[in-house]
Order: sequence, then C-alpha cells, then structure tokens
Amino acid sequence: MTDKARVALLEQANEPLRIRELPIPEVKEGCVLVKTLASGVCGTDVHCWRGQVKLPLPVILGHESVGTIEKLGAGRTQDSMGEPIAEGDRVFWVAGHPCNKCYGCVILKDTTACSNRKSYGTSYSCADYPYLVGGYSEYVFLTGRSFLFKIPEQVPAEAAIAFGCGFPTAVKGFEVIGGVGPGKSVLIQGAGPVGLSCVVLAKLGGAHPITVMGAPHPRLEMARRLGADRTIDIAGLDRPEDRVKKARDEAGEADLCIEATGYPTAVAEGVELVRPNGRYLLMGVFSDLGPAPINPSVVVRRNLKLYGSVFWEPRHLHEVLRLLALCNDRLKLEDAVSARYALEDATQALHDVEALKCVKAVIAPHAH
Amino acid sequence: MTDKARVALLEQANEPLRIRELPIPEVKEGCVLVKTLASGVCGTDVHCWRGQVKLPLPVILGHESVGTIEKLGAGRTQDSMGEPIAEGDRVFWVAGHPCNKCYGCVILKDTTACSNRKSYGTSYSCADYPYLVGGYSEYVFLTGRSFLFKIPEQVPAEAAIAFGCGFPTAVKGFEVIGGVGPGKSVLIQGAGPVGLSCVVLAKLGGAHPITVMGAPHPRLEMARRLGADRTIDIAGLDRPEDRVKKARDEAGEADLCIEATGYPTAVAEGVELVRPNGRYLLMGVFSDLGPAPINPSVVVRRNLKLYGSVFWEPRHLHEVLRLLALCNDRLKLEDAVSARYALEDATQALHDVEALKCVKAVIAPHAH
Amino acid sequence: MTDKARVALLEQANEPLRIRELPIPEVKEGCVLVKTLASGVCGTDVHCWRGQVKLPLPVILGHESVGTIEKLGAGRTQDSMGEPIAEGDRVFWVAGHPCNKCYGCVILKDTTACSNRKSYGTSYSCADYPYLVGGYSEYVFLTGRSFLFKIPEQVPAEAAIAFGCGFPTAVKGFEVIGGVGPGKSVLIQGAGPVGLSCVVLAKLGGAHPITVMGAPHPRLEMARRLGADRTIDIAGLDRPEDRVKKARDEAGEADLCIEATGYPTAVAEGVELVRPNGRYLLMGVFSDLGPAPINPSVVVRRNLKLYGSVFWEPRHLHEVLRLLALCNDRLKLEDAVSARYALEDATQALHDVEALKCVKAVIAPHAH
Amino acid sequence: MTDKARVALLEQANEPLRIRELPIPEVKEGCVLVKTLASGVCGTDVHCWRGQVKLPLPVILGHESVGTIEKLGAGRTQDSMGEPIAEGDRVFWVAGHPCNKCYGCVILKDTTACSNRKSYGTSYSCADYPYLVGGYSEYVFLTGRSFLFKIPEQVPAEAAIAFGCGFPTAVKGFEVIGGVGPGKSVLIQGAGPVGLSCVVLAKLGGAHPITVMGAPHPRLEMARRLGADRTIDIAGLDRPEDRVKKARDEAGEADLCIEATGYPTAVAEGVELVRPNGRYLLMGVFSDLGPAPINPSVVVRRNLKLYGSVFWEPRHLHEVLRLLALCNDRLKLEDAVSARYALEDATQALHDVEALKCVKAVIAPHAH
Repeated sequence: MTDKARVALLEQANEPLRIRELPIPEVKEGCVLVKTLASGVCGTDVHCWRGQVKLPLPVILGHESVGTIEKLGAGRTQDSMGEPIAEGDRVFWVAGHPCNKCYGCVILKDTTACSNRKSYGTSYSCADYPYLVGGYSEYVFLTGRSFLFKIPEQVPAEAAIAFGCGFPTAVKGFEVIGGVGPGKSVLIQGAGPVGLSCVVLAKLGGAHPITVMGAPHPRLEMARRLGADRTIDIAGLDRPEDRVKKARDEAGEADLCIEATGYPTAVAEGVELVRPNGRYLLMGVFSDLGPAPINPSVVVRRNLKLYGSVFWEPRHLHEVLRLLALCNDRLKLEDAVSARYALEDATQALHDVEALKCVKAVIAPHAH
Repeated sequence: MTDKARVALLEQANEPLRIRELPIPEVKEGCVLVKTLASGVCGTDVHCWRGQVKLPLPVILGHESVGTIEKLGAGRTQDSMGEPIAEGDRVFWVAGHPCNKCYGCVILKDTTACSNRKSYGTSYSCADYPYLVGGYSEYVFLTGRSFLFKIPEQVPAEAAIAFGCGFPTAVKGFEVIGGVGPGKSVLIQGAGPVGLSCVVLAKLGGAHPITVMGAPHPRLEMARRLGADRTIDIAGLDRPEDRVKKARDEAGEADLCIEATGYPTAVAEGVELVRPNGRYLLMGVFSDLGPAPINPSVVVRRNLKLYGSVFWEPRHLHEVLRLLALCNDRLKLEDAVSARYALEDATQALHDVEALKCVKAVIAPHAH
Repeated sequence: MTDKARVALLEQANEPLRIRELPIPEVKEGCVLVKTLASGVCGTDVHCWRGQVKLPLPVILGHESVGTIEKLGAGRTQDSMGEPIAEGDRVFWVAGHPCNKCYGCVILKDTTACSNRKSYGTSYSCADYPYLVGGYSEYVFLTGRSFLFKIPEQVPAEAAIAFGCGFPTAVKGFEVIGGVGPGKSVLIQGAGPVGLSCVVLAKLGGAHPITVMGAPHPRLEMARRLGADRTIDIAGLDRPEDRVKKARDEAGEADLCIEATGYPTAVAEGVELVRPNGRYLLMGVFSDLGPAPINPSVVVRRNLKLYGSVFWEPRHLHEVLRLLALCNDRLKLEDAVSARYALEDATQALHDVEALKCVKAVIAPHAH
Repeated sequence: MTDKARVALLEQANEPLRIRELPIPEVKEGCVLVKTLASGVCGTDVHCWRGQVKLPLPVILGHESVGTIEKLGAGRTQDSMGEPIAEGDRVFWVAGHPCNKCYGCVILKDTTACSNRKSYGTSYSCADYPYLVGGYSEYVFLTGRSFLFKIPEQVPAEAAIAFGCGFPTAVKGFEVIGGVGPGKSVLIQGAGPVGLSCVVLAKLGGAHPITVMGAPHPRLEMARRLGADRTIDIAGLDRPEDRVKKARDEAGEADLCIEATGYPTAVAEGVELVRPNGRYLLMGVFSDLGPAPINPSVVVRRNLKLYGSVFWEPRHLHEVLRLLALCNDRLKLEDAVSARYALEDATQALHDVEALKCVKAVIAPHAH
C-alpha cells in the first residue's frame, strides 16, 4: 500500500483546485482508511469554491462520499449500526461531526442544531492531522468519531451517492413533518438532489399527485422517472406571480409543499400554494441570501404549518441505504450520476455543477 | 317583555353608528333570545367600521358577547355542552357559523378552515331575519344552529368577555402547537387581547420567563399583573432591528415566540427571536396587509417551526370558561375591561379602541 | 315507483330474519331515498343476530351500504363534500349519527367518542319513522342528517363496499397513529375486513415488509394479493406462545403492530411483537369479551405506544373513496366480495360469515 | 487527600452490605473524582439487594447521587452542558451509559432503548477499574464518558436528589406524552418518587385537579404539599374494583392517568379511569412481575392512548435541575428526604425503604 494520497486541493477561492500529495497517517486504534470510490459535487462545494463560505484553507472539498475500506484500525470491527465490517467493504461515511456538548447536542438532542458542528470537506484544514479530511482525494482518513455505514450488497455505490447529502437531508425533513401519507398531494419546488430525493420519498409514501416545479429539462425528466406525476418547467416563468399562477392552474393547492430550490423568493411563492391547514417544508434556503417578501396573513388565515429543516444525522443516512436496498432495483438511482470526473478535472466539475449541466456529478479519483 | 330592541347600526363605513329599533322575532323551537350584558369592541370592529372589511350593510357589529337568557324556544333546554339552561342564566355564545359541508368542515374537520364561514357581527345583514344578529344591541336572537355556553357561576360576565374573541383565539393557537410546558421561555409580541390571553395561557402552563413586547403602558401593566415576568415597551423602538436587538438583549432567544400584533413586520422580527428548533405561533396578522421581508434561511438553518392559526371553534370558548372558573378568582380578568359604553356611545368606543386608549372596551347596552 | 320496500327483518335474536314489507315515507326536504345495491354483512351483524348486542327490535341490519339515489328531497343537491348529486348516482352513506352536543362531539370534537351515537342497522327500530333504517332492504331512507358521498365513476360499487366499515375504520386508525412510512415493518394480526384494509393502507404508505397473521387461507391469499409480503397461517398455532414464537421467527419485531382480530388474547401476543419504541394500533376488540393477560413491563421497558381506535367519521369514508379512485384499477377490491345473497338468504349469509366462509359477503336485494 | 474510599458493598444477595475500602484511581485526563454528598436509596436498590436483579457482584449500589468535585482530570473544564466546573462544585451525575452503537442509540436516537445499557450502581463490578462505580461510597470515580451537571447555586443538594432517578424518569415520561396542559385532570397511581415527581410536573403545567392514589399517609401528605388537589389512601381498598370505584367516585375519569406504582394490576385499574380519547402514561412497572388482566375493549372503545416510558437521558436530568432552580424555593423538595443513613447503616436503609418507612432515604457517607 502506498503511503501518500493524491488530492484536489482548494487553496484559494475561485482558483483552480491543485493536485497535491498528502501523507496517509498510520491507521491507529478505531480509525479507518477508506479508498474513495466517488465523492459527490454538491452545490455547497461550488459556494465554497466561490468564496461564499468561510473555510480554513487549504481544504479538500467533498462531504458526501463512498469508498471501500482500505484498512481498519484495531478494534474497529463494526459499522455504526453494529454490522461487521472488513477491509474491502463498501461504506458511506458521515462527514459531519457534532460537538456532543452544546445545547443542541445535549438538551435538544439534535446534532443538526449543534452550534459547533464541523464537517469533512468544509471545516477542517488539510494542513492538520489527519490531513485526508475531504472526499476529493484518493483516500479519506476517518478517526474514531466518524460514523460510517456499510452499503447493502445490492446497492451500487453510485446509487448510494446519487443524490449525495440531499437524500438524507430529505429523509430528515420528512421525519420532521411526520411523513406524507397515501393520496396526499405534494408540490416540490426544485429538481436538484434534495428535490429529487423528495420525489422518491413522496412516491414511496403513496403521495399523489406529485408535482415538481423546476429546471432544467433533464432534471425534470429524472423527476418523472422517479415517480413525479407532473412537472412544471419554470423556464420562461420569470415572475413569481407567473409561477404561482402556473402551479395553481396545473396542480391546485397542495397538502404538502416542499421548498428545495435555495432561492428565498420560492418561499414567498410556496405559501400561496399550500391548501388550508396544509404544510410547507423548507429545506433549500441554506445560505443566507437575505429576506423574501412573504405574506404572513396567508400563513395565519390558512392555518399553515411551516417547518424549516437543516442537515441530518447518521440515522438518516442509514435510512437512505435501507430504502435503497428495498427499492433501488426499480429506481436505479445510479442513473442520476450523469458525469464522472477525475481529480484533475475537479475544477471542471465545479464549473459544470454551477452551470446546472448535470443531474449529479461525482469525483471518482480512481476511475479511468 | 318588549317586542323591539335598540341597536347601534353600522349603515355606512366611517359614519357614526345609528341608534335604531328592530323587531324581536318570535322565539320559536330551538331559538334563544338573549339580553346583552356586554359586547366586546374588537379591533376587527374598527376595521369593519373603517371599511377595510366587506360587509352586507346595514350590520350590527359585535361578535363577542355575553348576556342573560331572556327566552328559550321550545326544546332548548341545554347549552352546547349539555348543561341545563334556564331563563336568567348568563351565557356566552359563539358568533361564527360554519357551513358544515365544505372541505374544511367535513374533510379537515376544522371549522376554522370553513370556506363559507359566517358570523354574527360581520356577515349577516340586520335587514334579514332574525335581524338581531350582532352584539351592539339590547337583545340578540340566536337561531338553533348557534352554540352557546353557560358562564360558570363564579365567573363575572365581564371576566368572560374581557379578552373577547382573543381568548378562544389564543386557546386554539396553543392547541395547534400542543401547548407550552413548564420552564419554557415565551416571547409574546403584542399586548392586545390575544397577546394578553397568551400571557394567561403561558403562565398557567408554567412557562418561564414570559416576556411581552408591546405598547402602550397600561396594557404592559396588565401583562405583568397576569404573569408576564418581563415587558418591553416598544415605544421609541422604531426600527425592526432595534426591536430585535432589544428583545435579544433582554430576553435572549425564546423556546416559543407568539405573534399577536397584527403587523406583518412583526413576523420578520419574530423569526430572529426563536431559538434553534423553537416554535413560532402566528395569530395576529389576520387582515391582508401585504408581505413582510422574512428571511427563510433563518427558518431553515434553525429548524424552526411556524404555525399559523386563525379563528376558533366552540370548544375553545368552552375551554376559556372552564379555565376562568379555575383561576379567575386570582386573575380577575374583569379588571381588564377598562371602559364601558352605552349604545349611543358605540362610535366613541370605536374611536377609543382605534387609538388604543383602552385595555378592553365593551358596549353595555343596558348599563347606566 | 313502488311505495313499499321489502326488508329482511331481525325480530328476535337467533331466529331467521323475516322478509317483510315496509312503507316508503314521502321524500321531504333534505331527505334521500336510496335503492340498495349492496349491504355488507359485517361481523357485528352476526353479534347482533346472536343477541350479543342490545338492539331495539325489530331492526333492519346493515350499516355499510351502497346504492343509487332513487329520489332526492327538495334542497338536497350536493353530497356531503359539496359534489353535485342527482337521481341515479351511486352513493355510499354513513350509517352512524353522532348527537353533536356531548363531551365527545363538542369538546373532544371527535364523533367516535360521542356518548349518544346511533346508527342505521343497529340503533333504530324499524317500527319508527322513517322505517327503512338498515341496509338489508330494497330501499334505505336517509333523513337530512345523514352524510353520504358519491362513489367515483371509476370505482365499482362492490369495490367500495368490499371491506365495508372495516376500511374507514382502518383509515381512522392510521390517522390516529399518524400513518406508517416507507420501509417500516408492519405486522397485522387478523385477515378480516379491518386487517385487509390495513394491508392496503400499509402498502400504499410504502411499509415493508408487511406480515399478516390470520386465517383462513382465502383471506391470507387476498392479503397477499393486496400487498402483504408474508402471511402466517395461525391454524394449528393454538397457544399464544406458539403464535408469538412463529411471528418472531418469521417477521422479527415490527415497527408497527396492528390488532384486527377481535380477540383479547391477540393483544397480549401483540405487545411481545413490537420493537422498542414501536407502536401498536388496537382496532379489533370492539365487543367486551373481558380481559387478557397483558404484561405491562413490556410496554414500559420497550417504550411502547398503544393506540385504541374505534369507529370513524364521514371524512374517513370520503378518504376510502378517494383512495379507491386512485388505486382500485390495480387493487380490484371488488374481487374480495366472494358471496352475494338475496334478502331471502340473509340468514344464510349470517351463518356463512359466522363460519368465516367468505372473504366478504354482501346482501344484494335487487340482484338476481 | 486520601487514596482510599470506604464503600458499602453488596457481596451477596440478601446479606448485609459490607464496609470495605477500595483504592481511588489516579484522576487521568477527562476523569472526575467526586466526593459523595448523598446517594438515593431507590426501590431498585432493594430489588438488587433481594436478588431480583442479576448483578456482577460485588457491586456498590447507588445510581442517583450528588457530590462535590474532589478532583478534575486534565481537560475536564465543563459540565455536560458546557458550564464551567471547578473543584468544590456540586454536581449531579448520570449513572447510565448507553453503548452509542446499537439500533436504539443510533437509529432510534433514544439511549433509553439502548440494548447494551450499563449503569453505575448496578451493572459494573467494583472489582474492575475504576472500582468506585456506585453511590454508596465516600467517593465516586467518573470516567470521561459520564455526563454530569452542575447543581444550580440556589438548589440544595438534597432537593436535587430528593426524588432521585424518579424525577428525570417523570420528566422523560411527560416529554413522551407531550406534557399536560392547564385545566387537565390528572390521576396519579402511586406516591413514591416517580409519582411525587409527576405531581410536581403536573402542577407546574397547570393541571387541575390532580389526584394521587397511594400510600402510606406521609407520602400522600407530601403529595398535597407539592400540589395534589386530592389524595386517595388505598389502605383498606384491597380489591381492584374497590380502588376503581373509589377513584371514579372521587375523581371521575381523568384526561391523563399515570401509573407509578410498580404493580402490574394497577394498569388494569388505570385503563378504567381514563376518559374517552384520554392518555395513560406507564412508568412504574419496570421489573417483569408478569401479566395483569387488562381489558383491551376499553382501550379500543374509548380511543385510549397508552405510553410506556422507561429510563431517561442526560437532558432530562438537566431539566430537573433547571426546574428546581425555578421553583424549589417554593417547593423545598429537600423536605422529602426524610431519612439519612451513614454507610454503616446502608442495610438498615434498604430495610426501611422496603417497608416504605420513608418518603425518601439517602446514604450520606460523610454526614455525621
């Protein structure tokens, strides 16, 4: 085995990522060295690269990754659910690390509310031990505190990574709202990884009809393949009132509306699209892009319930893998991975994701 | 008994109410004639008078009223909870009437979502039978479909009416959010009838500390008397950011924030004042006063839950009376009734309520 | 049109039903006369016939029925959801009538908790107006207070009636527990109408795996057709511990267990079959057959949640029809109606249902 | 400082505890040595002593304890909520340790469902490092994984320990059911530490009336002091039907019933005492004492909800301390500590608790 790993390094915002070699630390007790199969190129990676997120540079991007176990440290014999693991096994690891001692972690018992949350791929400098702390790398080094789950045999690695962190994000959001039942109408704003994951979850839960509003066309096609009953292409619907009118005309008011766009104005539109006593789940507007002109009298007069949800916990990733084991032979999420990039092409991947050229792009450091 | 009733009639928006005499219909099977003790002057009455609400003029205002039973129609022997009633009993009746056959009534089983809701005091013209369909009147005529509840003996009529429809509105809102538990911090925006009712409910539920943000001074004093641990006078805090800063400095972030102001901008401030995973109950912005610049990324990143709640159902009024029976000897809500007006002075009452001159004003048609 | 209707009358417990002719009342304002297409023979009918339920004899059995509108009284132009109705339309009516003024109806706002509940088919004597108050009759006379819903065009009448009152019972139960989500394991005890309805609902909600424990064989086959992943025939598993062991061996512990057997001892077994923090929905044990030896330490130590649920409300029947409109072309619930009886053979129907000879039996008064 | 600690050791079931000296380990990084102020004598300790719980003897009993920090290991500068701690500070530590990698811990995210739960005072042998693993000891040695919370200044140590693990048990139970609101009637079966804690929580939440059914007299007196509106002494009410009748006659049916007795039969009685659609919280029957004859038709026909709840998590203890800081100046829970025993008298303490001689007994190793 080699003692170095090649990585694509973000050294300066807006600059091309640099290919570097970093040392692979000794795999001590409890640690795991993973050989990266694929690391998703998330929209957040683009924000990081563009300098819109504060990072301890140099950073290895990549916070949603699957790989094979290269080496297990002493005592690490099970994954985070107690499943036995061995070298060669395919695993999906959890990039985020809560502090486990703040108000969010201890009192709220919700690590998505941790005030000191750190994550591989964004919060750690690769200048510090254990260096290999992001997915745009041949190898990732997991210390004892990282959660990881074995990928079920029947699930292709690319199916597991297809919607990246968007899938567990959606699973957590659905948990927050208590799910959606058979025959409930769902309107999903946004056809990116979070929105598409919501299509899967809504469909599995029997929702009907499921309408997806978004762009561009290939994503809407994927939405239909995953079970959307109706898609609305927002290309050309430039004004909020046009989009609201179109959605109302086509889909009526929804029992459940889901915001998965990332644009604040979508929320102003969404509240107009929920039926009385209906629910609105907000997951997309993660970055602070300022306020949107939302009408509270609609929320009050329609008895609406709005739920914000951010991040996810290890069990939500476990749920993703479990659901995939049940339904991926039919869904074939691996088809959503529409572009694979070598480490050398990571910068191109960021450009392409920024331009919405792919349904999902991944960095595949060992593919050729 | 007389066969006519004097009423204060809204014949034209912005004009003084006129004193008229209307015929008292025969009290047929199931009907009830009530002699009005007091009818609250709600902020909505001011909106109606100012022409901001569409009404089938001429209308008798007054949708929150208590009175004594003057005459019971045949077969009407019980109140809506099965308590025996007799002439002379004091009752609080429910002004609103759902249609019982729309999506809201039948499928949502929530009459506050009725799409054909009508109400004494706003939706009926007094030109139509049974004429006496609002509280600014010596007598009110209740047909068989009206819910009414006997006021418990130990509760003064003015205590029952003190926060008018604001109290059952608050009870329903608290029901929607599942209540607030011991030791939870509560921030209430607004010190009108809804806000003050929330103080009572939060205090009864053991919340601590309870902070009320509002104006003017006498309302904040009443808030303290009812159990608020802290009040913030917003006089002089003209900019939203000033109010947010002041609230944060004094009260920190709240487990539960409640909007009871009626101003859309309050909602934009409120989302900044809820702790992560906290809840925000919106009840104040009933009239459509347009949008406010709300930041959805705060809702998402803090896992916030927002609940709109409008109107209330008969059982919420019953709950008000039941709670008053338990705690009014201590609370003495009757002291909140700070002004009583004869029918002739109803227009003055509207002026005074508009100018926030009273904690609570009532029309007392028979007082002298 | 005739002015008389033939009915099968229960005049004395355990005696054969008698064929009689009863007068058809004038169809006054708000009333509806319905020509019976099919009336389900519910297990409760057998209990009624066997004298285990107190009835105001003579009674026309039949509380789950579909028919065509023969005549609409003045003013009755819509069904209970506001859909226009006309003579000739197929409808499913709600047999039960709450009092709308007791603690359950008003304060709990749950008519299944009504303390004065009456129902066509059980609580009314046919000696009293309007006489035709049960489904084992050529015609049923609905007064203004009866809820009725139009059957969607694409749904065969026998599909609507296939699980009779068991289907809305199951819908209400699922509502009580907040539904079941994708990938959750469900164990259903009992393969009668309630149990089979639960299979449909669990499957629509994405539950997996779904295990049904019951008998006899044709019902388990129907369970599989409707989506059960596994069935356990309890024939030969005579002791509770045998059934518990078999279920555990085959299905493990369930996220959700559902009791739909009617036998108290099933509950004692069920609590052993729910995973920690899991849920147990009890709907089957409607009649008081005495206690079962249940171990509360299991409930405590596993953090179990048990939910009892009885009856249903009009909206649950509406939900049944709405779900059938969505999925019956695939499910073909009409195939569950395995036996049709003329009025003259109603007694035989009761015998056959008692002997579990049918998946579902119906009385079809006009079929030949 | 000494390097040895005196402990009262359970070496053999039913034998007197033995006074021994055990070595105090070096206080390494992250560890904490605590000087025991008081350790509650829980009913579970009696079960342990009586050989009804399997233990890795020799064991130091005591799983609910408060003490002062004698020595802090390197790096241990905060309590589990991030509050700074120093030597001399009074703390309440969490005896239980979840495994953090089982289905309960990871997927259910509920450490009370941990399948490998261990706890100071019951699951560790004092033959193994770090030896001082129970509260009946002069000193307790906490390794890095133990949660501990600083006791608020205004709270006496004995107030914090007064209901021992019963108080956080009750806090968790109330969390499971979503609390109890103002004006709701509560019936509590049992007046031990769990039952009395429920009185405190119900009272803080505004419940009314609160009825406690139990024995003996001093505990019922304490219940009244804490806010119970009514107590029912079960002395002389030997048959279940007598207790049910007495409770119904005095208290009617309760919105919420709570089982805190430890006796299975209490559950059979409790289901008869909940109103329709009401809730029943089961916390008392922790040990498996076999089944009770419970009538499931009551659960079904009344739409009851039953919630089992066991154990608690660190945040529930934090909540106890927070609530005490708010209300103990009024409640003075320290008065519930009715007996203090030296280590030498620990056996006598077990005898007295077994005989229900005390409201609450504590071992106070350093008192004299």
